[in-house]
Formats: sequence, C-alpha cells, structure tokens
Amino acid sequence: MRYYLFPIIILLIGCKNNGRTELTKNPILPKKKIVFEGLNRPWSIAFINDDEALVTEKNGDMVKVNLQNKTKKIIKGFPEDLTDSIGAIHIGDNSGIFDVLLHPDFKENHKLYFSYAAKKKGVGKTTKFVQAQLENDSLFDLKTILAAEPYTYINYHYGGGMAIGTDNKLYLTVGERLFWEHDEPALPIAQDAKDPRGKIHRFNLDGSIPEDNPDYGEGTVPSIFAMGIRNTQGIALQPETGSFWFTEHGTIQGDEINILKKGGNYGWPNSTTGRLRSEDYKPPQLDGVEFTSPTWFWHHTVAPTGLCFYTGDEFPQWKNDLLVPGLSRGSLWRFHIVGDTIKSAEELFLDERVRSRKVAQSPDGKLYMLTDEENGKIIQILPQ
Amino acid sequence: MRYYLFPIIILLIGCKNNGRTELTKNPILPKKKIVFEGLNRPWSIAFINDDEALVTEKNGDMVKVNLQNKTKKIIKGFPEDLTDSIGAIHIGDNSGIFDVLLHPDFKENHKLYFSYAAKKKGVGKTTKFVQAQLENDSLFDLKTILAAEPYTYINYHYGGGMAIGTDNKLYLTVGERLFWEHDEPALPIAQDAKDPRGKIHRFNLDGSIPEDNPDYGEGTVPSIFAMGIRNTQGIALQPETGSFWFTEHGTIQGDEINILKKGGNYGWPNSTTGRLRSEDYKPPQLDGVEFTSPTWFWHHTVAPTGLCFYTGDEFPQWKNDLLVPGLSRGSLWRFHIVGDTIKSAEELFLDERVRSRKVAQSPDGKLYMLTDEENGKIIQILPQ
Repeated sequence: MRYYLFPIIILLIGCKNNGRTELTKNPILPKKKIVFEGLNRPWSIAFINDDEALVTEKNGDMVKVNLQNKTKKIIKGFPEDLTDSIGAIHIGDNSGIFDVLLHPDFKENHKLYFSYAAKKKGVGKTTKFVQAQLENDSLFDLKTILAAEPYTYINYHYGGGMAIGTDNKLYLTVGERLFWEHDEPALPIAQDAKDPRGKIHRFNLDGSIPEDNPDYGEGTVPSIFAMGIRNTQGIALQPETGSFWFTEHGTIQGDEINILKKGGNYGWPNSTTGRLRSEDYKPPQLDGVEFTSPTWFWHHTVAPTGLCFYTGDEFPQWKNDLLVPGLSRGSLWRFHIVGDTIKSAEELFLDERVRSRKVAQSPDGKLYMLTDEENGKIIQILPQ
Repeated sequence: MRYYLFPIIILLIGCKNNGRTELTKNPILPKKKIVFEGLNRPWSIAFINDDEALVTEKNGDMVKVNLQNKTKKIIKGFPEDLTDSIGAIHIGDNSGIFDVLLHPDFKENHKLYFSYAAKKKGVGKTTKFVQAQLENDSLFDLKTILAAEPYTYINYHYGGGMAIGTDNKLYLTVGERLFWEHDEPALPIAQDAKDPRGKIHRFNLDGSIPEDNPDYGEGTVPSIFAMGIRNTQGIALQPETGSFWFTEHGTIQGDEINILKKGGNYGWPNSTTGRLRSEDYKPPQLDGVEFTSPTWFWHHTVAPTGLCFYTGDEFPQWKNDLLVPGLSRGSLWRFHIVGDTIKSAEELFLDERVRSRKVAQSPDGKLYMLTDEENGKIIQILPQ
C-alpha cells in the first residue's frame, strides 16, 4: 500500500503545480510565426483543409497555398475585368481582389464565392461578387451574384466582405465608394435603398433573393439587408448568438464595430463617431429614420478589417472572443464578449506593428493573420 | 504492475483535463465585489495588514477601515490647513486629501506619509507632503516634507502621489497647478527648476535631500528628480526592473504613462500628446532641452490616476502587469510589460464604468479599487 500511494501523491502534487505553472507559463500574450510569404498584399483566406487554403492577393491573383509544403499555385480563370492598384497614383487605392469564401458544400460541389474591383470601359469600376466552381485549380461556371452599379472612377471603399449565416444565406458588404462627403447626392448613397452601395446585402447561396429580406419599397435593391454603411471589409459570425459582427472604416476617427440587424441603418453619413472629411458638408435631414449605434468605436484610426471569432483550443481564455486586425495601427484587437456586450478590449502586438488585413482560423482551430505588404505573409499566432 | 499503473494513468488524464478546465473556467475577465462603502471620495489606501488599511477621503478624513468588520475610524490630528472641494463652485476642483503611504518600517516606528491641499490665509493653496507618527488612531509629530510653494488660488493639478523606491527614497509628485496654459510665466512652471511645481521630487525618508539627486544648478529646488510634468497623481514601482511608472493627466487627450528617469524632462507644456487648452498659447523655445517621450498615451481622455503593478496570485496571467484606473472612462486598464516595453493593453469593465481613483494590492495579494464617489467604495477585483 505504501508503494502504491507514493506515486499517486507525487502525481497529485505535480498536477497542482502543473496547473499553476501552465497558467503562468501560458500567458495571454501570443507570439507570431511566419508560415508563408511572398504574397502580393493578401486580402483574405479560405481554408480547404488544415494545410491548404485559397488566398486572395489584392494586387495579384487568387492562389492556392499549402502551408506545409510552402507551395503556391495561381488559380486560373479569374475574371479579366479585374482592376487593381498596381502603379496607383493615389496611396490607399482599394482596387484589387478582395474576399474568398467557400460554399458550405464546397467538398461536394467545389463552389466558392469571391469579390473584386471590376472595371468597365468608359464607366469606371465597382465591387463585384461572383460564384464559381473550382476544378483542377481553375475557375469555371462563373456567375455574378452582385455588381454594385453604378460604376464610378473612384478607387476607394469597395467593401468586399462576405460571410454565410446560420440561415445558410450569403451576406455581402459594399462600401459607398466615395472619398469626400461633398460628392454625396442629395440623398446620400448609403441612405438610398435604390443604390446598392453603402449596404450589406443578403442572397440565397444560388444568388437569388431570399423572401424574408427587408422590404424597402418600390424600385429599391431587393438584396439590401442593412444600410448606412461607409466601408465594411470584414463580417463574421458570433458563434454563441449567431449574429454577424462587422467592422466599418470611419473617416477621421470613427472606425467602428457593429452588430448586424435586419433593416438596420448604421447612420453614414448622417451619424458617425468620427469627423467628416468634407468639413463644410451637411447631411440632409432624414425624417423618421432611426440609426443603430455602433457596438464599439475607436478614438483613433485603426482601419479595422477582416475580423473573426476565435473558437480554437490553443488560447482557452480567448474562446469565442472577437479578434479584429487593423491596417493603420498594425495591432490585433481582442474583444471579450457576452451576448451583444463587449466586456473588455485588448490591443495586442503593440511593439511589432504591421499592417494586418485579416485574421482567420483554420478548420483545426489554428489562428492566422495576413499582412498587407508587397511581400505579404501568413503569420500563425501561437501561445508563447 | 498492472494495478500499480492504473491509478497513475487515471491521474495523468485527470491532471491534463484539470489544467485545461482551470484555464477555461478561469477567464481573464474579472468581477467586482463591493467590500466597503460610505467613503467620501476615497483617494488612496495604505494597507496596515491584510484586513486593515488607512484610506484618504478627498472630501473627508483620513480613516482606518477594517475590511472584515466593516468598521471605520477617523484618524485624529490631521492638519487644520486642509482645504477640500466640498461646496466647490467649479466642477473638478482637485482640493482635498490625497495620498497616504506607510514608512517601510511602519510596524516598528508607526511613521507614515500623507499629502493634501493646504491653504494659507491670503495667499491660497498648495500641495503639502507630511510625515507623521500614528499612535492610537491619532497623528503625532507632524513634519512637513514639502510644501510646493508658491500658494495660489487655483484649485487644480496638485499631483499628490507618493511612493518609496528600491533605493529607500521617497518620491513625490507635484502638479503644475495651472488650468490654462496662457497663465504660464515666460519660463513655464513645469520647466523651471526654481519652482517645485510640475515636478517629481526625491527625498530621504527623514525629509532630507539625497546627495545623488540631479543638479539643476544655483537657486534650484534640490529635491527635484524630474520635471516637465502637468499633473501626476499615481506613481508605482515596477517589480521586475525597479523603475517607477507614473500616470500623467493631459489636457484635451494627452493622458500619458511615463517611466521615471533621473533628470528626465517630460515636456509639459512644450511637448504633449494632447492639444493645449489655450489655443493661442505658444510655449517658448527651450534650447538644449531634451524631452522624454511617454511610454504610452491615449487618444481619448482617461484621466489615469493611482496605478499599481499586480504581483498577486489570483490572476496568474496578470503577474507583474500594470493596472491603471481612470476617472474619466471609469474602466480599468491592464498593460502587459516586458522591461520598459508595453506589449499589450487591455481595457476592462467596459460595461460597468465608475470613476475609479486608485488600484491597490493588499499584503496578501488581493486586488482592490477605490471609486471616486460621494458614497465611495472599496471594490475587490476577483477572478470570475
């Protein structure tokens, strides 16, 4: 009996120490590990499996990367009306390839969605969302879900974010495509339900219009689900509530995080937590319109983009937290959330800032970040 | 052998699960528990033991509280030249009792230090630091360490923070006592080594001047250790480096955290991360003066005050993190630090804002927060 109990006691002590040591040695602070580089301003990533992913390069191609073999293949058959910002005169030109998203039944039907800045001769550019089938690293059977007309010559605020809801619908974000507010028409673009820009849209997975979309009346765009949005690039599903949370780029300050509500109006340009760029611009009075307040806003420019909710196991303390990368400050924000309430906000990687475009999780729960650089990287975020 | 190994395997599995469960059940998010109330705008706290502490009430007394019995005793013998902001006409009047700090040998000699706004008939008010002996809940043998003359009629920016360094010296913070920058003399107060205001001072524990203080030359105040400070209420020792970190109140934005350096000049009013209140004020050119940059600044008003480094065991992930309360946003900031570098910044209690004046740790490592309210509270911060 003596011999029998001895190792148990040792193990019990070891266990207690182990728990404490693990907590102490496993601080909240994560570290970065570059797992892939040589991507031309990567914008988004869609994991096919734990090691393989489709990556969109804003100024390049849609590529298939293998994180283990470090190989990269260009996906052929991308639309030729793509316009990017290579050689752009204006810094911050947003044109290029944006998001990529797998169909829920991708494994069976090989379907996917992607978004990009499309050009049309003589009229300009717009945000385009396309469904396609991927066979042998080529895109086939391309079908436009939405081209957010009108085309214009402005290079900014395309939006381009995509996500699929618990309702199996496709949600798309389109920016209002203006740079200056004094270029707004009498009824601001994002407030006009006849204009697809400055909106979040909702489609069936085949591109048809769901019957239960909000009704904005005669002549309006039937795919509109919410409006009053300046520029949203990231939209992500909260695992506990099934709500969508989305980032919004403000002007001077005014970067926000919002929770998507059916028929919600997020206020742009009438209501914003930032200052308007056109100091003399006065938005029109909109009678009977109620604005949805942001869930979070920053007092400084963050340029929040491709957010995700963390559901992996490597950071147990972060379970279901919202992670938001920022282009401007190059840090990673972590929000601890209960229901629709943000309980705490943490800014990570303060001393190693790099323009961060997207945070995403692989099917096996690993956490990755894409850097918006000419030698763009996929960085794995790991516990210390 | 079979019987021998079986319980070990069970325990090993239990151990692994235990570690994981502990991590998951022990999230970073803390909760609040009110352990004492009825304090008149508590400013600071000095623990005599795990349950008993001296608390300064900005608009009341120095009191001794017992957190277990919930009793409160007024400490008699407080100086009669105290002036507070009861009935103040101007909101934000800073006058009152400020910090309280035990002598390192308090248990033997019963000595302590406290600071307050002192008035003198016909000349105004200033920040005063006093050493005294505590016997039977009364103060005896009062000795002024510093009265930051001149007295003025301005009610703001007294400073009043105190701490003892690893060098066993007493460090005191004095604000520059102005509200508007256009009231600055030709050489701004905080830049003038002949003026004790807008400075951090260093004394021997008996109130004499250490021999190794910086030398600012003929006719300067010999206790000055650093200058260029607008208003610092909190100063705390980093346990790993032995450096002092201190908060600084900015004007419009410009709230900062600095690391104290001997002879450091923190720039006020010539260099600030905020905007000056007097828009037309131009600080003079100061030739050959080098300013020390803040380690952290906020883009919004936080009004950071009595900070502390956490060295307790209840939040193992927070070990040696800096905790900073804010009056303005009423949240608690947590900074993870390596050496002199802030690695991450977290804002806690976002949905339960209350003006927070001070964060402090008891000798047994419990964490407390004082709320700046007429019914001021001592709140214990606990793991969920």
